[in-house]
Amino acid sequence: MPGARQLAGMHRPPSPPYQEPPALEDQDLLLAAAYVSDAQYNRNVPFETSPQAIRLYCFYNHWTMRAATYFFICVDLALAFFEEPAWLPLPFLATSIAEVLCLTVFFGRLVHFAKVTPQMVFWKDTKNICLMVTIVLTLIDLIIYGSLEAVNIHAVRWSRALRPVFLINFPESRQIRRAFRSIRNTLPDILYVFLLFIFSVLIFSLMALKLFGNRGLKTVEGSPYFTNILDITFELYVLVTTANSPDVMMPAYEFSWWYSLFFITYIIINTYIFMSVFLAVVYNNYRKHLKNEIRTLAYLKRHKMIEAFNILKVKVGTEFVVIEAQWRRLVKLVAPDISSSHLELLLRVSDEGQKGHVDKTNFLRLADLLNIQVVTVNIRRHPLEAWMPQVYQSSASLLVQKMVRHRTFVWVYDVIILVNAVFIALDEKNPFISYAEWLFLFLYVIEILLKLYTYEPRAYFGRKQFWNWFDTLIIIAALVATVANTTIRSARKYSSQQILDIVLILRILRLLRVIISIQRFRVIVITLINIGPTMLTFGGLVLVVYYVFAIIGMEVFQGRVHFDPSSASPDALACGNPALKDSAFAQGRYCRNNFNDLASSLVLLVELTVVNQWHIIANGFALVTHQAAKLYFIVFHVVVVILIVNIFIAFILEAFFVAYSLEKSEVETAIEKKIQELGVGVQEEEMQDRSLVDNVDAKDSGFHGDEGDNKRKALKGLYFRIASKRYRTVDALLQQMFESEIAPEDENPSLEEILNVSPSSRHPRNPSFGNSV
Amino acid sequence: MPGARQLAGMHRPPSPPYQEPPALEDQDLLLAAAYVSDAQYNRNVPFETSPQAIRLYCFYNHWTMRAATYFFICVDLALAFFEEPAWLPLPFLATSIAEVLCLTVFFGRLVHFAKVTPQMVFWKDTKNICLMVTIVLTLIDLIIYGSLEAVNIHAVRWSRALRPVFLINFPESRQIRRAFRSIRNTLPDILYVFLLFIFSVLIFSLMALKLFGNRGLKTVEGSPYFTNILDITFELYVLVTTANSPDVMMPAYEFSWWYSLFFITYIIINTYIFMSVFLAVVYNNYRKHLKNEIRTLAYLKRHKMIEAFNILKVKVGTEFVVIEAQWRRLVKLVAPDISSSHLELLLRVSDEGQKGHVDKTNFLRLADLLNIQVVTVNIRRHPLEAWMPQVYQSSASLLVQKMVRHRTFVWVYDVIILVNAVFIALDEKNPFISYAEWLFLFLYVIEILLKLYTYEPRAYFGRKQFWNWFDTLIIIAALVATVANTTIRSARKYSSQQILDIVLILRILRLLRVIISIQRFRVIVITLINIGPTMLTFGGLVLVVYYVFAIIGMEVFQGRVHFDPSSASPDALACGNPALKDSAFAQGRYCRNNFNDLASSLVLLVELTVVNQWHIIANGFALVTHQAAKLYFIVFHVVVVILIVNIFIAFILEAFFVAYSLEKSEVETAIEKKIQELGVGVQEEEMQDRSLVDNVDAKDSGFHGDEGDNKRKALKGLYFRIASKRYRTVDALLQQMFESEIAPEDENPSLEEILNVSPSSRHPRNPSFGNSV
Repeated sequence: MPGARQLAGMHRPPSPPYQEPPALEDQDLLLAAAYVSDAQYNRNVPFETSPQAIRLYCFYNHWTMRAATYFFICVDLALAFFEEPAWLPLPFLATSIAEVLCLTVFFGRLVHFAKVTPQMVFWKDTKNICLMVTIVLTLIDLIIYGSLEAVNIHAVRWSRALRPVFLINFPESRQIRRAFRSIRNTLPDILYVFLLFIFSVLIFSLMALKLFGNRGLKTVEGSPYFTNILDITFELYVLVTTANSPDVMMPAYEFSWWYSLFFITYIIINTYIFMSVFLAVVYNNYRKHLKNEIRTLAYLKRHKMIEAFNILKVKVGTEFVVIEAQWRRLVKLVAPDISSSHLELLLRVSDEGQKGHVDKTNFLRLADLLNIQVVTVNIRRHPLEAWMPQVYQSSASLLVQKMVRHRTFVWVYDVIILVNAVFIALDEKNPFISYAEWLFLFLYVIEILLKLYTYEPRAYFGRKQFWNWFDTLIIIAALVATVANTTIRSARKYSSQQILDIVLILRILRLLRVIISIQRFRVIVITLINIGPTMLTFGGLVLVVYYVFAIIGMEVFQGRVHFDPSSASPDALACGNPALKDSAFAQGRYCRNNFNDLASSLVLLVELTVVNQWHIIANGFALVTHQAAKLYFIVFHVVVVILIVNIFIAFILEAFFVAYSLEKSEVETAIEKKIQELGVGVQEEEMQDRSLVDNVDAKDSGFHGDEGDNKRKALKGLYFRIASKRYRTVDALLQQMFESEIAPEDENPSLEEILNVSPSSRHPRNPSFGNSV
Repeated sequence: MPGARQLAGMHRPPSPPYQEPPALEDQDLLLAAAYVSDAQYNRNVPFETSPQAIRLYCFYNHWTMRAATYFFICVDLALAFFEEPAWLPLPFLATSIAEVLCLTVFFGRLVHFAKVTPQMVFWKDTKNICLMVTIVLTLIDLIIYGSLEAVNIHAVRWSRALRPVFLINFPESRQIRRAFRSIRNTLPDILYVFLLFIFSVLIFSLMALKLFGNRGLKTVEGSPYFTNILDITFELYVLVTTANSPDVMMPAYEFSWWYSLFFITYIIINTYIFMSVFLAVVYNNYRKHLKNEIRTLAYLKRHKMIEAFNILKVKVGTEFVVIEAQWRRLVKLVAPDISSSHLELLLRVSDEGQKGHVDKTNFLRLADLLNIQVVTVNIRRHPLEAWMPQVYQSSASLLVQKMVRHRTFVWVYDVIILVNAVFIALDEKNPFISYAEWLFLFLYVIEILLKLYTYEPRAYFGRKQFWNWFDTLIIIAALVATVANTTIRSARKYSSQQILDIVLILRILRLLRVIISIQRFRVIVITLINIGPTMLTFGGLVLVVYYVFAIIGMEVFQGRVHFDPSSASPDALACGNPALKDSAFAQGRYCRNNFNDLASSLVLLVELTVVNQWHIIANGFALVTHQAAKLYFIVFHVVVVILIVNIFIAFILEAFFVAYSLEKSEVETAIEKKIQELGVGVQEEEMQDRSLVDNVDAKDSGFHGDEGDNKRKALKGLYFRIASKRYRTVDALLQQMFESEIAPEDENPSLEEILNVSPSSRHPRNPSFGNSV
């Protein structure tokens, strides 16, 4: 990392005071743009500052390159569907060629990255080393497996479990990496709680052995109850997950009421208290590390912006500034798609006094300014009004528009939706009801047409009009699917199952529209949507863990359990394996839960995550292999349920608490003030709360007034509003929180300091579990 | 409430300036003491200020009166064990006489309370009204039930479900009431999330009906799969609790892999996201309301202290103060058991300059000063040293002492404990092992004797030496029980089961001593012990809810399911009820889970709280009564699992976070400073971390030095230290947090303002769910 700073410093010596500002070359502007762009997207990749390297770096960050990388990662991961044990078997040659192709792409990407990064930095980064080692190991494994396969020896393709390394370690997957880091940082603290928890389970197991072992009690299945310490420990561990409650205590409870107290004590201590302590420790560490990471990000952003400023600065009067022309060129480079009115607005915000230059404080805000989505609201007349004003302004037409805008219109349609729900629940074999379906579809289409008649269509389908889009898409899809289904049915005399399923689901999803009508519901749903993007991070995290466990599970358990729905032989009742005869696994008809291909393995892992009956599945697979197989399931439980699910809960809690404490950032306030000053604002609250009705509603309340008109032409007839903060991600909110802590003048921490600072040294007041209590 | 203030104000007009201070009468001091005592214990009962009323009020607060109230509440609640359906049936006459006795006591307590409280305040308080109504209703129910019973008509004793009202509504149960209030305040916010959640379940149920209803699929039991919308909704609600996963999805999953996606989506949305949102909403509200309550308490405390100051103040120079003699008398009244050295220490802290009077700021801290437990450490010589110094100071004796103090001594005993654990796990039928047990007991006794020889016994068994007490008690109990057991066995040739059980448990609890040796474990356990007292509040809360549900459950389900372990008739296999034949309830041998007496009902409710298999129990009771009986179980799930368990988790999370941010309060710092100044301090950290070894260890490190000796005689040869903050409750920590927010001069909010302030108006920045997002 220090390399970048040195190079940047060498390349651009500080402008000597009282000299003519040097003419700014294109490559300098390019370098500044690269810094600003990095700051805007929170990237912290140090890069070489030669003009060629900067161009390569911009290309490296181009969305097509990133998309291609993700595509090949997906292909690489998806190969497991086609390799033995396969869902859709392909010859080894085909999958290995595909894998080599993927590896080549990854290697190419890595070389590209090496080209733009200073050598020292590149080789110091464990991510890159890790990627290279994985590529080499995979190649070795491919060669060994291929040659052994050629002489018909079956080998284990162990390198497949390493594939998620590619998903984690490319610089694009910052979020997943951060989640993993936060898990790794939580480990030491959670380890001691876990050991204490295991100790408690062991103590209780010993007690159970002594209390119940010699009673001669029998379980429901007739086997001896609590006679073996290992079995007891497993049963009690399962009880922590509540999966075998109350069965495990029934024999003792039947023997004496008092023995139920043993199990109740056990559950209170181990299930309720210890599991809550796990959540508390995970949550506390998650929060601590998240804040540290985001604080570091905020410092890095400031650092990059200062670098950019130092490149562009010229001395005007007593202070260094960036002159307007340079600023414009820079913004155009960083955000090529920016509208000129938006650019103008940002300039007005940054150059408050219209002095023709931007000072340092305002320049440093640029990345944040660019990140704030300013929606340009175009107050336009309805196309029909322009096309045939007499008809559109006629009293009948106005009545229709008034009707559509009225609250009752929404209520009527809510009632229609509810009636529709009842009809869906009724038997559709009845022809009257299947005709009613057409009636409902017709009514929904009428609704959308009426709304489009009343509201300006481009505003109705604005970028942030989530619910309008949802509405329309669902209706159109349902219409298309229903028509297709009817056509197929009349042509082929039977309905296509897949299309019918889709029609059914679409028909029912339509009912979700009721939510939109109720303000309180909408609020909750918007919060959930808000959390959505970061929730995908957890999707990635879970995918990585599932993939590794699925690959291991397939290697160990493939083919041990067979599912054959067609066979009626008694063998099928034991899942094709005599060892399972009369086991709870076979009796529960769990044969479909197997590791015979990736798809089944993933579903099985989801079932294990949900926890219930996991001990039956674990016992089943232990019967067909070895008792030690239970370890696989216990490890999975510890990793996924105790660690990852708790992090997920911690994340949702944190997201909700951050959402509760929403406040406008200083930068947003500045933009809003400017928007208001220029008289081109649209009230945000007004927009949001009526978004159901539509967003051009605002035009009725504020802009068709008389005093609004004269201001309307300012800034080319456009109106701005800040995109609702309700749609912002938790990350952005957290970052905003920490940025307010950094004083504008504060450039003290150098890049090295920022990157080397340890979480503990940064937070002397927020000690870790070990040394605080 | 305003009455109290007015009365207090009328009784004591503000002393006119520049006048001789009026002689302070005894009753004024009594009134001030009542105020200070209220502030110390966070009571906020306004009381009459006549001398007689104050004496009555002190009597009302006396611990015997409170203990008696709790005793009769316990008796009243325990009556359910003896009433039909009874665990130990008593005639109706006996239980009704006991109940009338309890009611009389409650009424007496209420009258006592009315005597000391201003009338207006008393009748405005819903608690009192509620208590009176409950007493009257219970009497009416008793009379009706008794007269109907006399003519052999069976009636329902519905008033029994009201009994927990007494537990909640007496002023002593502030904590339980606060927990209920926080639940009540959470309800509106959680209601909307709950409705949305139910809506989501219904939408998915409709989809499931349409997708799977016509497939002709069969469940494992062979019944049709997903054909009835009500059944589907119940099944999917159960899936939210994960109790029927993966069984509920197996038929669809066997039909097609793709259908598993339906269930996985359902689980992600409803189990993971919605349940986390419930936790987030409950936690957020819990925290908000807890903080408001404690803030109010802090204001009330300040208010009471100011009232007390205004009574005692006299003018000295330009400021009002309390003179030393009055202050001493007051403290003696408030804390009769205070040691004179402790009193002296507090005076030195309060009267910094030894001016003979205490100023207002210092006076207001009095309640906090009294609340800080100052441990007086008595550095004494070992009694043996005093008795026979030659022997105790001989080189052999010193070697023994050095050995015992050495770390290795602890490690050796840890190894012994682990070896003991292995021996316990082995079969005890082997005579060699049962002799080994005696050896281990002997070793443990030797250990304690050695420690008592080395350390000063009174210090070893100090008030806060939790682990030493634990150690000794466990060993003595095990010794007594083992001896008793051996005696009985040799006398009667077989061992007594109960005593054997106790011996077994004690023997295993001894293993817990290993925890003490490992610092990290001790830290976690201390945090948990810290949380303990407040956890009991939840015990009370859960007890109230369980009691009400148990009473209702017994009325509805008693006698429907029979458990008869001795009978081998086929009837017993169906729990004595033909309706249960071949049901999962009977097959799981769940007959013992019934509502046939209070003890069984409570265990059953615990099983329902743990959730697993609750649908089987619900279905079983629905079979023997009516399908609507499932409602009872669903309501229980919503109330206990969604509300109370989440509040419990929220509480543990909050407790851990508060424990993480432990800091010393301003008042503690003042006392500590004074202790250090006077040279009578014992390092707290030192004490705490070595508490395992012993606490007189500190004597070696600091006090036997030369410069320590001359200071030692100060303040009567005693040493003080502040009792570890690690043992303080969460409540105290929270309160300390908020008190630091109130400026010392701030007496502005009047009592009315404090009590009428609404949570929302107090926290404009912390809005509720509805209007924030």
